[in-house]
Amino acid sequence: MSQAVLPETRAAASSDAALRARARAVIPGGLWGHLNAAKLPEGYPQYFTAAEGCRLRDANGREYIDFMCSWGPMVLGHRNPTVEAAARRQAEQGDCMNGPAPVLVELAELLVNTVAHADWALLAKNGTDATTACVTIARAETGRRKVLVARGSYHGAVPWCSPSLAGVTAEDRAHLLTFDYNDTASLDAAAEAAKGDLAAVIVTAFRHDFGRHQDLPTPEFARHLRALCDATGAALILDDVRAGFRIHLGGSWEPLGVRPDLSAFSKAIANGHPLAAVTGRDRFRQAATQVYTTGSFWCGAVPMAAAVATIDELRRIDGPARMRAMGERLRNGLDALSSQYRLPIRQTGPAQMPLMIFDNDPDWAKGDTFCATALKHGTYFHPRHNMFLSCAHAEADIDEALDAAEAGFRAVAKL
Amino acid sequence: MSQAVLPETRAAASSDAALRARARAVIPGGLWGHLNAAKLPEGYPQYFTAAEGCRLRDANGREYIDFMCSWGPMVLGHRNPTVEAAARRQAEQGDCMNGPAPVLVELAELLVNTVAHADWALLAKNGTDATTACVTIARAETGRRKVLVARGSYHGAVPWCSPSLAGVTAEDRAHLLTFDYNDTASLDAAAEAAKGDLAAVIVTAFRHDFGRHQDLPTPEFARHLRALCDATGAALILDDVRAGFRIHLGGSWEPLGVRPDLSAFSKAIANGHPLAAVTGRDRFRQAATQVYTTGSFWCGAVPMAAAVATIDELRRIDGPARMRAMGERLRNGLDALSSQYRLPIRQTGPAQMPLMIFDNDPDWAKGDTFCATALKHGTYFHPRHNMFLSCAHAEADIDEALDAAEAGFRAVAKL
Repeated sequence: MSQAVLPETRAAASSDAALRARARAVIPGGLWGHLNAAKLPEGYPQYFTAAEGCRLRDANGREYIDFMCSWGPMVLGHRNPTVEAAARRQAEQGDCMNGPAPVLVELAELLVNTVAHADWALLAKNGTDATTACVTIARAETGRRKVLVARGSYHGAVPWCSPSLAGVTAEDRAHLLTFDYNDTASLDAAAEAAKGDLAAVIVTAFRHDFGRHQDLPTPEFARHLRALCDATGAALILDDVRAGFRIHLGGSWEPLGVRPDLSAFSKAIANGHPLAAVTGRDRFRQAATQVYTTGSFWCGAVPMAAAVATIDELRRIDGPARMRAMGERLRNGLDALSSQYRLPIRQTGPAQMPLMIFDNDPDWAKGDTFCATALKHGTYFHPRHNMFLSCAHAEADIDEALDAAEAGFRAVAKL
Repeated sequence: MSQAVLPETRAAASSDAALRARARAVIPGGLWGHLNAAKLPEGYPQYFTAAEGCRLRDANGREYIDFMCSWGPMVLGHRNPTVEAAARRQAEQGDCMNGPAPVLVELAELLVNTVAHADWALLAKNGTDATTACVTIARAETGRRKVLVARGSYHGAVPWCSPSLAGVTAEDRAHLLTFDYNDTASLDAAAEAAKGDLAAVIVTAFRHDFGRHQDLPTPEFARHLRALCDATGAALILDDVRAGFRIHLGGSWEPLGVRPDLSAFSKAIANGHPLAAVTGRDRFRQAATQVYTTGSFWCGAVPMAAAVATIDELRRIDGPARMRAMGERLRNGLDALSSQYRLPIRQTGPAQMPLMIFDNDPDWAKGDTFCATALKHGTYFHPRHNMFLSCAHAEADIDEALDAAEAGFRAVAKL
């Protein structure tokens, strides 16, 4: 139904509050999904007008050092000149055409040469596209149906895996069985329950469930999972959507020495340009041709050019090592402040994807106060979801963020 | 597994044949999905290096007048200056940030003001995201499960709707019931079979199934469907992914006077930039907040800026009328050639999304010969899938294409 929105209002009401009010009229709940600021402590902005490197500017003109990196994608920092130049060069030729541009081949070769287990790659737009394709390809190859998923793991936002059950039918999840991350006994029990019908086990690179401490995979768990898949013929699917290209460019389980059969990548693959990828071993190549995976923009050349530039640059500068170093600087600084203010915290996960949770903070009062205060001092942390470093974070940025963090600790000390 | 691809080869082998050979090594089947040239007659290029307006250049340097428009997205033509300028301006500020840019609100307001039934909008990346969200929102709102789909209609490329059954389980489609497009009796029978569990009917804007004549919806069918949904409380979902913004800017069923409850848009919404949208009536607003729909790039601002520019421009120039006029010029020219060469054809669908099929051509020999010949003469038609006009097609382009078509008819006459 048409509502009277005068042309003039399209530029007029542009403060964060005004934009939210306008959005509430035309977008259910004001915004869909994980970027809805209503899920953050008071004071967090919803709308952003500019970004560069590790800095963001909101619609009210305030600037922040950013530790969410758009929840992952900005691995080299916003508007990275190398990536944007590559994207612009491709855009000046063509983007979405009747077939791919040559850069598709360059990117697929680069993925196969970079991702250790990869014999092939195919592209998509969303992380959910990639995880769904992995599961479907695994079922097509094995002719089996059951898929094991870790309780609480996030694999996407469609009925088979969405954290919300609204609109989901029992049949959407009929063939899922659950286990506990890092718990080999529960994994074996789930595999046993699947009997001869086990198509795949899908697992995130580490345990990064919302609102709880993060757990790195134990080498025993990873090796046990690999052995289970080898013994049963099931596919080991690594959901590397969130962690991919931050932990190790060869795939996030390379440091463990365990290689998956299929991997799903997205977020950081093209430094914010919309792209996802499935990589796989030869055993699954034929099945990947039988499953129909496609979308109107999946051959778009600009995000592919951005991905080539992103991965090349990450290799050139050893991006994961740089992000780890800056993440450790942040982590050490936060630990020092925690001691100084006698406010115990626990920091978990890889340093480049950190999470800091206060001890004895069941209602998040400390975490929320800390983050809201740091935000007022110009640093954008998250109290409950893992954060992200980028290669644009330099030592001076970390030190400036630690000043904001100190203000946060002071505020928590007064609670 | 790493394969030895030397850096030098990344720029070296770039003919269409060389690119295909390289791709076969690293991409299952050489390419996923609907843009795989293996599904086209001999001689069609797979790789494209440049595009402008209604013209494409392939990796071998050959140029074509294009009647596929990237299978829909290019509604204003490739690299439309107005759209690209808007995209560039936004890219110079920020794209994928910790929340949307103000342009989200502008776009949502524009959609609500443009799409006749829309009280709200939410955005996504793929047409499949939008159709899946519509079905899930309908289930969430109604608390029911059954969804009626027309036999042979394409609604996306995930297990519930994919044309391939590889990797699909019976449960993925447990709650789908089928009817025949434009057949009210079969629609009623399917609704009756769903009994009190009918959540939605999803229907394409017209019948544009691959490899057969197209059928426009009869007004009786559309009104009957609306009445059925009103009587049962089921959602009428219009899958306007393929036709949206070419038939009528208010939604493709506006000329019929029948309004859906939920619509899925994608392809043409941002002239090739990756974007999709769901629009809905107020009744489904609350359910749309309960279903979790999100993706890493769904708040990306550049495609939204492109969409605002695209829709504004389509409104300004009455894009659908312009495409219809050029489509009718093409259709009339093809009819004249058909008579001249005494080769009967049937042309179906809206003029701006035409399909031409030769009579008595069960193995597509005539259609394939026609298309392969026209291609040699610089015009890119499709023998089996509906084609697309864009606003970049001018009379001179149509006339030039008709010269290529005449070569095609001559070749068919010699079969």
